[in-house]
Amino acid sequence: MGDQQEPSVEKLSVEDSNGAPEDDVVDPWTVTSTSDSGVDYDKLIKRFGSSRIDDALVERLEKVAGKPVHPLIRRGIFFSHRDLHTLLNMVEAGKKFYLYTGRGPSSDSMHLGHLVPFIVTKWLQEAFDVPLVIQLTDDEKTLWKDLTVEQSMKMARENAKDIIAIGFDVNKTFIFANLDYMGRCAAFYQNIIRIQKCVTFNQVKGIFGFGDSDVIGKIGFPAAQAAPAFSTTFPFIFGSDKLPVLIPCAIDQDPYFRMTRDVSPRLGFPKPALIHSSFFPALQGAKTKMSASDANSAVFLTDTPKQIKNKINKHAFSGGKPTLEEHRQFGGNTEIDVSFQLLRFFLEDDEELEKIRVSYSKGELLSGEIKKIAIETLQPIVADHQVKRKDVTDEILEQFMTPRKLNYECSVKKGK
Amino acid sequence: MGDQQEPSVEKLSVEDSNGAPEDDVVDPWTVTSTSDSGVDYDKLIKRFGSSRIDDALVERLEKVAGKPVHPLIRRGIFFSHRDLHTLLNMVEAGKKFYLYTGRGPSSDSMHLGHLVPFIVTKWLQEAFDVPLVIQLTDDEKTLWKDLTVEQSMKMARENAKDIIAIGFDVNKTFIFANLDYMGRCAAFYQNIIRIQKCVTFNQVKGIFGFGDSDVIGKIGFPAAQAAPAFSTTFPFIFGSDKLPVLIPCAIDQDPYFRMTRDVSPRLGFPKPALIHSSFFPALQGAKTKMSASDANSAVFLTDTPKQIKNKINKHAFSGGKPTLEEHRQFGGNTEIDVSFQLLRFFLEDDEELEKIRVSYSKGELLSGEIKKIAIETLQPIVADHQVKRKDVTDEILEQFMTPRKLNYECSVKKGK
Repeated sequence: MGDQQEPSVEKLSVEDSNGAPEDDVVDPWTVTSTSDSGVDYDKLIKRFGSSRIDDALVERLEKVAGKPVHPLIRRGIFFSHRDLHTLLNMVEAGKKFYLYTGRGPSSDSMHLGHLVPFIVTKWLQEAFDVPLVIQLTDDEKTLWKDLTVEQSMKMARENAKDIIAIGFDVNKTFIFANLDYMGRCAAFYQNIIRIQKCVTFNQVKGIFGFGDSDVIGKIGFPAAQAAPAFSTTFPFIFGSDKLPVLIPCAIDQDPYFRMTRDVSPRLGFPKPALIHSSFFPALQGAKTKMSASDANSAVFLTDTPKQIKNKINKHAFSGGKPTLEEHRQFGGNTEIDVSFQLLRFFLEDDEELEKIRVSYSKGELLSGEIKKIAIETLQPIVADHQVKRKDVTDEILEQFMTPRKLNYECSVKKGK
Repeated sequence: MGDQQEPSVEKLSVEDSNGAPEDDVVDPWTVTSTSDSGVDYDKLIKRFGSSRIDDALVERLEKVAGKPVHPLIRRGIFFSHRDLHTLLNMVEAGKKFYLYTGRGPSSDSMHLGHLVPFIVTKWLQEAFDVPLVIQLTDDEKTLWKDLTVEQSMKMARENAKDIIAIGFDVNKTFIFANLDYMGRCAAFYQNIIRIQKCVTFNQVKGIFGFGDSDVIGKIGFPAAQAAPAFSTTFPFIFGSDKLPVLIPCAIDQDPYFRMTRDVSPRLGFPKPALIHSSFFPALQGAKTKMSASDANSAVFLTDTPKQIKNKINKHAFSGGKPTLEEHRQFGGNTEIDVSFQLLRFFLEDDEELEKIRVSYSKGELLSGEIKKIAIETLQPIVADHQVKRKDVTDEILEQFMTPRKLNYECSVKKGK
């Protein structure tokens, strides 16, 4: 809540310690770090057993896609993967796949960070020309939050409009909310039961940390997030084809897909491939993920230009030095400076970003100045989103959310 | 498997012990007793906390229904209840209610015992002219048995045809199988989530004995059996009315509804009322419930007259004495004699039944003779069922299983 433009000595001292923080917490419900530069992703890769997206993989991705990768991949914001090489092998062999991503709708309005997986998903969809399914876990939100079924369902629809405004192609994209879609297609529940038959309480206890006092809805829920990784959950798109899937998501969602990858071969499906993003920093710094329930922790997609300006000026954690003299002498720290991090996510021009980084690190660019650049970069992005969001009518929403054929030709006849 | 016409000394000795067996097991998956007369129902009522259906309640039921109760109630085969007085109060006050019963379809063919709850349900439906919903828990069978989703779904449809052949009125009856209906009406899943939000693993552990190595599908399943006790699970019948429900079922299903009754007030619904039946004896004796997976343990609805004759002659546990002389002197024991028990369930004429009881107890009627009566009583019932079953076409099945209005007028407009 307080003005955090001036980093305290304590905060700066984190830089000096070479040891990574011992107690990052990363699971689908909690992301916290003790370091101002945020979660230690190298450690996380080791802990989760995923693989780093290295230069060779980026290069290969560009080769197969036939175009430069999206800045969010190039800049290492998508930093980790599972089986992306295997997926690219299949693509090169002429096999089809589809994309699956999602969102837990816990508030009417999304913030900028929520866009990140969708932006890369859109890039992937266009690069590979593949169908995409987007899950809104309104059931999860009812189970975990103080939200009724009705409230969660309403939020899912509002969030879907924001997602559509990103520019997905209605001919290639199916958006569904669990509390609604479950009643539209029995294949969804049937796959959930198949998955729930393969996973014990002991396993979800180990993966998600569930305990005896958790409600049974939570214990069963992971199967609902796993099911869309099985193409037969969408018979109207894929018939009975058992297709490979690529799942772009923030790394806190990985536990769901570790479980899914365990189950896949037992149900005769290929293991889903994943690419993981790092976390978008809260305005108050990278120690926490942004929270949709704290209006001051993030730039929201509904914010006015003035609100964006005030939020960043007032709340964006600064990597600058306490005094002008010190800043000029020692330079700012772009690793922890939230304004710079925002630019890393949303400023498309690589050269300009590098210029800013060098200039801020040298102390030429001041805290107030880098904030101004961040504000002026984000304001038009948010304003543009609002214009596009306004065009998303209930009719368009219905189109996206109606089970239907997409631009995919089934290899075999549709099953029942 | 062996010929059990001649009770062993060990079996007879059970009679002598006055103490009830200490280790009856009664839960939705296991029913065993150490006594030849079967489960100790008085103890069960105490243990479960339900109430005995006494003469006063039977009398009241007849008064409100305006006709004599069904023999299965009059003879104490339906022996226990929860809140039936409360339900009758509401009926007398002019309030509406509905009936809910069900079946777990674990084999293509049902046996005679499976008919029992449905026969009484039909009597209740006709006596009170109320809508009825019948759940087939094919999801449960997939989770508990070595059955695929497809196999369970097929069995559900086959069982539904047997249920329809009992003579339910299509204008008042909706039959649904979970693995199919879940995809036809989102209200079902929405109520499941509401229920699953109210129940912890600790609770289902206590109620059902689930453990950490159980699959998560089992842990979540009780909510699927609870949901039809909430009238909003069927918006096409009841709109948004929150109606009282009466559930006729075998007493091993009571744990599900204890859980349901716990949740109901929290979701703004009246607690379901219940009437419980005792168990239909296996041919081998009342120590176990019949098993649909053991062809010799029961008379099946698909059996030929000859099969019925052979099964009863060969396998029906006898309460007669080992020798003709002893039998003439001491008489048979109708409490443990399976043929007599079959007559108690299926011989409609009270006077004739009493004559048989007295005559067999005195040793006038012999084992072979009572078996003959049982055979001749069951043969036409099964043959008649087969004739009616043949008339149940796929079209009629579809009618029963299609979500639609029944003969119920909603008190308020349908919600979404």
